[in-house]
Amino acid sequence: MAHHRFVPDRYYNTLGTHAEVLVVQPGDTVSTTTVDARGVDAHGQLRSSGPNPMTGPFYVEGAQPGDALQVQVRTLRPNRTHGWTRNVIASNVLDPDYVRELPDRDASNEITDWHVDMAAGTAQVAGNAPAYAYPPLSLDPMIGCFGVAPAGGEAISTATSGPFGGNMDYVGFREGVTVWFPVSVEGGLFFLGDVHALQGDGEIVGTGIEISSDVEFTLDLVQGLDIHWPRGMDAEFLFAAGNARPLDQATQHATTEMSRWLTQDLGMDLVTAHIMMGQCVKYDLGNIYDPAYTMICKLSRADLAAWGIDVP
Amino acid sequence: MAHHRFVPDRYYNTLGTHAEVLVVQPGDTVSTTTVDARGVDAHGQLRSSGPNPMTGPFYVEGAQPGDALQVQVRTLRPNRTHGWTRNVIASNVLDPDYVRELPDRDASNEITDWHVDMAAGTAQVAGNAPAYAYPPLSLDPMIGCFGVAPAGGEAISTATSGPFGGNMDYVGFREGVTVWFPVSVEGGLFFLGDVHALQGDGEIVGTGIEISSDVEFTLDLVQGLDIHWPRGMDAEFLFAAGNARPLDQATQHATTEMSRWLTQDLGMDLVTAHIMMGQCVKYDLGNIYDPAYTMICKLSRADLAAWGIDVP
Amino acid sequence: MAHHRFVPDRYYNTLGTHAEVLVVQPGDTVSTTTVDARGVDAHGQLRSSGPNPMTGPFYVEGAQPGDALQVQVRTLRPNRTHGWTRNVIASNVLDPDYVRELPDRDASNEITDWHVDMAAGTAQVAGNAPAYAYPPLSLDPMIGCFGVAPAGGEAISTATSGPFGGNMDYVGFREGVTVWFPVSVEGGLFFLGDVHALQGDGEIVGTGIEISSDVEFTLDLVQGLDIHWPRGMDAEFLFAAGNARPLDQATQHATTEMSRWLTQDLGMDLVTAHIMMGQCVKYDLGNIYDPAYTMICKLSRADLAAWGIDVP
Amino acid sequence: MAHHRFVPDRYYNTLGTHAEVLVVQPGDTVSTTTVDARGVDAHGQLRSSGPNPMTGPFYVEGAQPGDALQVQVRTLRPNRTHGWTRNVIASNVLDPDYVRELPDRDASNEITDWHVDMAAGTAQVAGNAPAYAYPPLSLDPMIGCFGVAPAGGEAISTATSGPFGGNMDYVGFREGVTVWFPVSVEGGLFFLGDVHALQGDGEIVGTGIEISSDVEFTLDLVQGLDIHWPRGMDAEFLFAAGNARPLDQATQHATTEMSRWLTQDLGMDLVTAHIMMGQCVKYDLGNIYDPAYTMICKLSRADLAAWGIDVP
Repeated sequence: MAHHRFVPDRYYNTLGTHAEVLVVQPGDTVSTTTVDARGVDAHGQLRSSGPNPMTGPFYVEGAQPGDALQVQVRTLRPNRTHGWTRNVIASNVLDPDYVRELPDRDASNEITDWHVDMAAGTAQVAGNAPAYAYPPLSLDPMIGCFGVAPAGGEAISTATSGPFGGNMDYVGFREGVTVWFPVSVEGGLFFLGDVHALQGDGEIVGTGIEISSDVEFTLDLVQGLDIHWPRGMDAEFLFAAGNARPLDQATQHATTEMSRWLTQDLGMDLVTAHIMMGQCVKYDLGNIYDPAYTMICKLSRADLAAWGIDVP
Repeated sequence: MAHHRFVPDRYYNTLGTHAEVLVVQPGDTVSTTTVDARGVDAHGQLRSSGPNPMTGPFYVEGAQPGDALQVQVRTLRPNRTHGWTRNVIASNVLDPDYVRELPDRDASNEITDWHVDMAAGTAQVAGNAPAYAYPPLSLDPMIGCFGVAPAGGEAISTATSGPFGGNMDYVGFREGVTVWFPVSVEGGLFFLGDVHALQGDGEIVGTGIEISSDVEFTLDLVQGLDIHWPRGMDAEFLFAAGNARPLDQATQHATTEMSRWLTQDLGMDLVTAHIMMGQCVKYDLGNIYDPAYTMICKLSRADLAAWGIDVP
Repeated sequence: MAHHRFVPDRYYNTLGTHAEVLVVQPGDTVSTTTVDARGVDAHGQLRSSGPNPMTGPFYVEGAQPGDALQVQVRTLRPNRTHGWTRNVIASNVLDPDYVRELPDRDASNEITDWHVDMAAGTAQVAGNAPAYAYPPLSLDPMIGCFGVAPAGGEAISTATSGPFGGNMDYVGFREGVTVWFPVSVEGGLFFLGDVHALQGDGEIVGTGIEISSDVEFTLDLVQGLDIHWPRGMDAEFLFAAGNARPLDQATQHATTEMSRWLTQDLGMDLVTAHIMMGQCVKYDLGNIYDPAYTMICKLSRADLAAWGIDVP
Repeated sequence: MAHHRFVPDRYYNTLGTHAEVLVVQPGDTVSTTTVDARGVDAHGQLRSSGPNPMTGPFYVEGAQPGDALQVQVRTLRPNRTHGWTRNVIASNVLDPDYVRELPDRDASNEITDWHVDMAAGTAQVAGNAPAYAYPPLSLDPMIGCFGVAPAGGEAISTATSGPFGGNMDYVGFREGVTVWFPVSVEGGLFFLGDVHALQGDGEIVGTGIEISSDVEFTLDLVQGLDIHWPRGMDAEFLFAAGNARPLDQATQHATTEMSRWLTQDLGMDLVTAHIMMGQCVKYDLGNIYDPAYTMICKLSRADLAAWGIDVP
């Protein structure tokens, strides 16, 4: 179980079958850094260009199509004090006629700067926004975009997402989470970036508080685990992610993946699984801004345990 | 502030401009009962037919189009021990091809009976489901369907919802909630019913644990409060509900209503409101089963207070 | 086969179980008039208010739930020289960000007047639009809104549509068409109105050329014909209409109804019907403006005849 | 104006920035061949694997991002007698519950063979389908998938489509059409393949009559023509294509692109353009099967000429 300290010197704007930057064994841990959504690093240096430059890809020895790549996010720490957001809700998240009441496009594209204080655990508007007693908000860092190389030789923009993960912008992808992605190419090829110091559900202004970050994660394999969509778990929940438009379809993907998980992998019969889901399921909105929207279908470990399902 | 004890002797399957069953003054409280989604009461007697027979309408003296009708749900107590659910996830919530893996239609329409124990605070499968050590689930009673007469002389089935409320099936409509509906006809004409002892997000099997209930609520008016969609608040959150298909559109309605609330009614300027919503907003899925889906856009009182907005 | 000349003296803004204005026998023909979408008649007199005031309902003796009501549109003749349209594409039909480039709301709600010349068969902009050499357009009169009382005691605004028909705004509902609606209440209760002298596909500015009209139609019954959505035929095509949002769902309804028609009513086996539909089907866009969108799934009589299906 | 005869020896399953197979000058014509959707050529030899292997890419000297690549389809001739289709409507095109009535998945994936007779101009079911007097259908060959390399370094599966074109499956992409694609990389990089001998609107069984083909086309440039979505024209119509889910969004893209074309490139003022579109626009459904759906917004040359717009 090696621990790699990896310093990136290039970044990708697509998830694709790109040359790996590091080969790791299943079980290895990697410490590295990510730049922000526009390619700016911890020192304010522009290192790449947007959208969402990715650190990686990391090649996991032995990973084959049909396996699941497991990622445990051990630490996720923004590594500078400057963050930024857009400041007007995106037009696709508002009633079509209400768009007329928004500031003009230039004002809408204006950027708000935030001061991020990791010691205090807060972010606060600083700078060019209109005068206002902006309060400090509690940080909750998350990974906006991560995943593996897609199938079929595709290279997909880090602006969007799919079965392979990508720009899901779900607040639950925080320190401590374990995520599984479906492997489509040898080595899996894991990418990550676009960390947010904080984000509301849906990423409705088109950004979280965009920031560069230190990150440490452990990569592993579950051979032969046939998943269709990203799955994850944390201390409280098991969840599945669906990425598509409209949000209805994202919800269908996430719900179907949870149904498969319970029946194919956790041994429940379908009707029992559906009876439980019917009364116990929760949904979280990932993003409703990007080209593909993200919906999360989740079940609590407590409910699962009550129904006889213990997941370590 | 009178307290009315009202015993229903008829029920409606549409929200419409029906003859009121009781006239109340703003501020009055009503104690009454609801039958379950198929019209069965506390004593197991069939009193009406589905879908979702409504108690009411209650006419609030002075309510005029352009006002908001305020409903405080003071108590919500299922009043029998028998509940029921459907037991297979609805085909519109699953991937189109996965529908082929569901049990045949008859099996899918089968009903599962639940034993509801209000003293213990639990519901447990009982009866005709496949043998399984079904666990007790914690109750969390909620109102599936409530609202006011729609505009334009419409009478809308209690199977669906709209700007006037209706069958939103949101788990947050529980005891303690305060909700506002836009008044479209004189007296507002408030209806309610379809109580669930418990429900997962989305009502994905097409039911919660359907049950009859005792309910006590206070009706009031906010004159001249021009709202487009139902709004609500509880101890923790302020929220707006959007009802439409696809879920994207429901999200647009809810988000726009929250933006209006903050800017028109709570005094924030639009950009500040959007900066806050961008990083603080939460969404809950109401239903993704009925003809109109329901999305909830919410903000915590804590966040609002930090941004200078105190709502009593 | 009586021929009724009916002069309306009231109009409805909902399709619902309203008191009939005339009782007819199956096979009877009715000659009557419709007012325009805002309630203005042939003489420029305001007779009702919008949206889309309906003439009717006509009660067909013997019509029962489970039957289909058949309507043959014999003549459809705008009966005045003044028509009107809105003049900016609706915001829900354009890219969300492009809405910012539209004229402001007041200008967008401005009305353009048209001169309609039935003898010449043309409509031409006249009046308050910006100076421009507006060409005469060829008339193609159609019924914007018609249908029967919905099921379940609903009364549905003539702004929208459903399984019962309503505001479908499909250009194929012109003189010569035969349409079937699913009967949900005794007598069926047929309504019609909202005639357009001409309309582009989709009704994307929110109107056709709105006008009052003379209309003659024959009402009949097909007992026990169990249809789920409106069906129609003209000299060239058989078609089914689906009404919903998103347009995907409208398309699913229309396609499913056509599949049912071929297999349940016209005797094809399902696979043969789908082989034919796969290579021969056509779709028309009804409206993409109203609360429910309309998609038409159609097959030519020529193709059907080639596959052994002759429809008189 | 050279005429290149190009014999492909490799095929791509993505549209991306792949090494060109031929460099041409603007105005050059290319004669080449395409294999069918599964990679089978004129001689029944498997030359590649699915989905939709592309011939190309062709590099047009001088093409730069911000230009439009112009493609005139001079001839399109299926070059063998064997075609094939799937034979059951795809589950995403039918009502979710109706999917239960389809044959099981294996039967649904069965392939139907067709005999294609170019001399007679017909295609007729031959082979493994259930016994039936299958009629000959008139051929109408079209290009299922064509387009240019997408922006941002993406490589997008030929199963789907986007602003760059791709798998649009629109029946109007037949011999004689001229199409423009937005150039995103140097040389544009034009790909084509997936010819159908015939197809119904929507490609609702997931295929047209899949076949290999001879094709001749002329490539040209329109420098500085800033288009967002594919545009096209034939003898009768000018049209714009939008590719997205849901179909509503595809319609928004196509409609917005047509509005831009009229106002930015053809000199109409916005309100006049919208008045015309409102009453003259037509829509065609491209595909409603692939990951992105395709809607076509079109105007007739006759209508455009009447409004003062002549397009050579």
